[in-house]
Amino acid sequence: MSVTAPAGFAAAGVTCGLKSSGNKDLALVQNLGPLTAAATVFTSNRCKANPVLWSQQVMADGRVDAVVLNSGGANCYTGAQGFQVTHSTAELVANGLGISATDVLVCSTGLIGEQLDLDKIAAGVKLAVDALGQSDSSGPAAKGPSATSPPPTSPDAGLAAAQAIMTTDSVPKTVHVQGAGYSIGGMAKGAGMLAPGLATMLVVLTTDAHLNSADLDTALRAATRVTFDRLDSDGCMSTNDTVTLLASGASEATPDLAEFTATLTEACLSLALQLQADAEGASHDIAITVTNAVTEDQAVDIARAVSRSNLFKAAIFGNDPNWGRVLAAVGTTHAEFDPYDIDVSFNGVRVCRAGEPDQSRDLVDLTPRAVDILIDVKVGTATATIWTNDLTHDYVHENSAYAS
Amino acid sequence: MSVTAPAGFAAAGVTCGLKSSGNKDLALVQNLGPLTAAATVFTSNRCKANPVLWSQQVMADGRVDAVVLNSGGANCYTGAQGFQVTHSTAELVANGLGISATDVLVCSTGLIGEQLDLDKIAAGVKLAVDALGQSDSSGPAAKGPSATSPPPTSPDAGLAAAQAIMTTDSVPKTVHVQGAGYSIGGMAKGAGMLAPGLATMLVVLTTDAHLNSADLDTALRAATRVTFDRLDSDGCMSTNDTVTLLASGASEATPDLAEFTATLTEACLSLALQLQADAEGASHDIAITVTNAVTEDQAVDIARAVSRSNLFKAAIFGNDPNWGRVLAAVGTTHAEFDPYDIDVSFNGVRVCRAGEPDQSRDLVDLTPRAVDILIDVKVGTATATIWTNDLTHDYVHENSAYAS
Repeated sequence: MSVTAPAGFAAAGVTCGLKSSGNKDLALVQNLGPLTAAATVFTSNRCKANPVLWSQQVMADGRVDAVVLNSGGANCYTGAQGFQVTHSTAELVANGLGISATDVLVCSTGLIGEQLDLDKIAAGVKLAVDALGQSDSSGPAAKGPSATSPPPTSPDAGLAAAQAIMTTDSVPKTVHVQGAGYSIGGMAKGAGMLAPGLATMLVVLTTDAHLNSADLDTALRAATRVTFDRLDSDGCMSTNDTVTLLASGASEATPDLAEFTATLTEACLSLALQLQADAEGASHDIAITVTNAVTEDQAVDIARAVSRSNLFKAAIFGNDPNWGRVLAAVGTTHAEFDPYDIDVSFNGVRVCRAGEPDQSRDLVDLTPRAVDILIDVKVGTATATIWTNDLTHDYVHENSAYAS
Repeated sequence: MSVTAPAGFAAAGVTCGLKSSGNKDLALVQNLGPLTAAATVFTSNRCKANPVLWSQQVMADGRVDAVVLNSGGANCYTGAQGFQVTHSTAELVANGLGISATDVLVCSTGLIGEQLDLDKIAAGVKLAVDALGQSDSSGPAAKGPSATSPPPTSPDAGLAAAQAIMTTDSVPKTVHVQGAGYSIGGMAKGAGMLAPGLATMLVVLTTDAHLNSADLDTALRAATRVTFDRLDSDGCMSTNDTVTLLASGASEATPDLAEFTATLTEACLSLALQLQADAEGASHDIAITVTNAVTEDQAVDIARAVSRSNLFKAAIFGNDPNWGRVLAAVGTTHAEFDPYDIDVSFNGVRVCRAGEPDQSRDLVDLTPRAVDILIDVKVGTATATIWTNDLTHDYVHENSAYAS
């Protein structure tokens, strides 16, 4: 599982004191090649964190040898000093692994507006580099840091990396999907796609397929467009979101791009749904599907408007099939539809037909965690789904107490 | 106070059983003239309730003789039967007052998707018409319904009307502002501007100024643009929002339009801030002011984006001056600014200067109900304020339990 599942990748997850809890807080993923191609999608937030500003430069040539990720601080709105910390982090990794700093992607997550402690980062990078440097054959008798770290290409190393990027996540998120002669692995953090606690969604995907960075970019954009981009847990976009895909080519398989994109989409969807299932304070995982829209974009617009209605989300928390709140949100969009010819179903029960009450609300059971909302706008053939969560007391509690 | 404060208006608020609580649930406001000019602003939600569809037709000629308003049901998404209930309500009022149904505005508020009981409405209209028909000199010894209703042009009658349109409001909202030779009165309901519980914001303003409907329309649009349109309690737009202004001309004063607009704006702002102060579950009233934007629209866009960030709103609930969440929301807009040259102050303490930490967060006191957020984007001279509320446990509770 995780980023070490495909051939050609090593990983480590270590503790360096950025988190007061003493949990793992620094992860390192190295692409062992032979290929070091990469593609990355960054947050579209115009207020971007220092690691995003740095990593955008790294991606200019489509080559990434290693990704270093820290929890315990977003390094966003920390000015020139913060950028220097990011730069130094990449240098430390580069020196440790014998690669170029301009091939080291940096990702950070945690609170905005607080400086990261570079001494702690340096200690963490040393521990992680040491863990990557150990032989896979190192037995239980080995000494030093490597004695406490799993072999760097082992499943346990991938899991340790996934644990080290957790913030308010309650479980690590990992994936491994088999393609035709290759595989895709991955890890993710984020208690909701769009930055609950502004603690950011970070994703690292790895593959041993042999594809250049342009093809990886095409596949990654296609996959994220219908997965991470359609997860909208709380409507709040992070300053640090980064999804990166590394290819080692170690399988020597050069897959058909369409097939690879489908496999990658499967991996992204798995991680996205794991993020949804662990969203801060959520008690329901809600899939809002709009059918028969004029275009897919319009279907997305309608579903996203509903996903951002606090009244709708609070109703689901209360197990209330309040279809009036669905239609009120639909009515705020500019998509094409007849406001008085829309059907709405909750978990398979059509409670609204053509804009009037249909089956009884009492037939709807919203006690399961999974909730399916179907909105049929009856004007075209396009469909899209947005995944969101309900608005709960626990969400308010976690996000009012986060910084304290 | 309220709608009966200016000369030329009568009002009543009665109980007809639409609310299970037994509280007042039907209000009637009559313009006694000599002028019956009016202007109205309706919700921009494309999913409009039946009373909005009816009232849009009524407004075609700019004449309104009476407004009938009910709580206990929004009459939205109730189909042809629901429209017939609205039409019949207007007919009943018209027959009772000896006016034309096409001069009767209808407003409804409550749950979407449930039919209103026309028999109850008819009983309520009869009670209200009887109350309006009584002589102002009727003493305590009078018999029949008038015995329990205050004189129709009295302050108590205006208050009764304001009480009859309450849903989750905890207090009635009324205003009376003196102009040059005339005055403006008003009432409002809505536990938040943008439809908490989709229970809708309804406002009736009255004036004894002598202005035609075109001038009233100009003044009302100017006043609502900088008051009700900038109240964004929970980001959810109602299907029933209606703000209407009635002019009786009874003062015989024909004010300067700019002076009248300023007075009207004062009245609207008072009602808007009363709505904010009574927003469902809120524990803070937040004013988000953006200064030095390129245009007023851009200032509004930035402030509104912050007002819709659940993370920001939850932080304020937790008395947490989390300026990172402010900037993350600013970054989602398309307004012109330099993301790394923005100042943010909480209650007068500048916690972020040019995108870096400035004064200590510990200096900020967020325990008072009033919170002032100042965002200086330093690229122009335009300013705007959005008024919003925090995201609290009580908001989640009220809106998950509303329909049950």
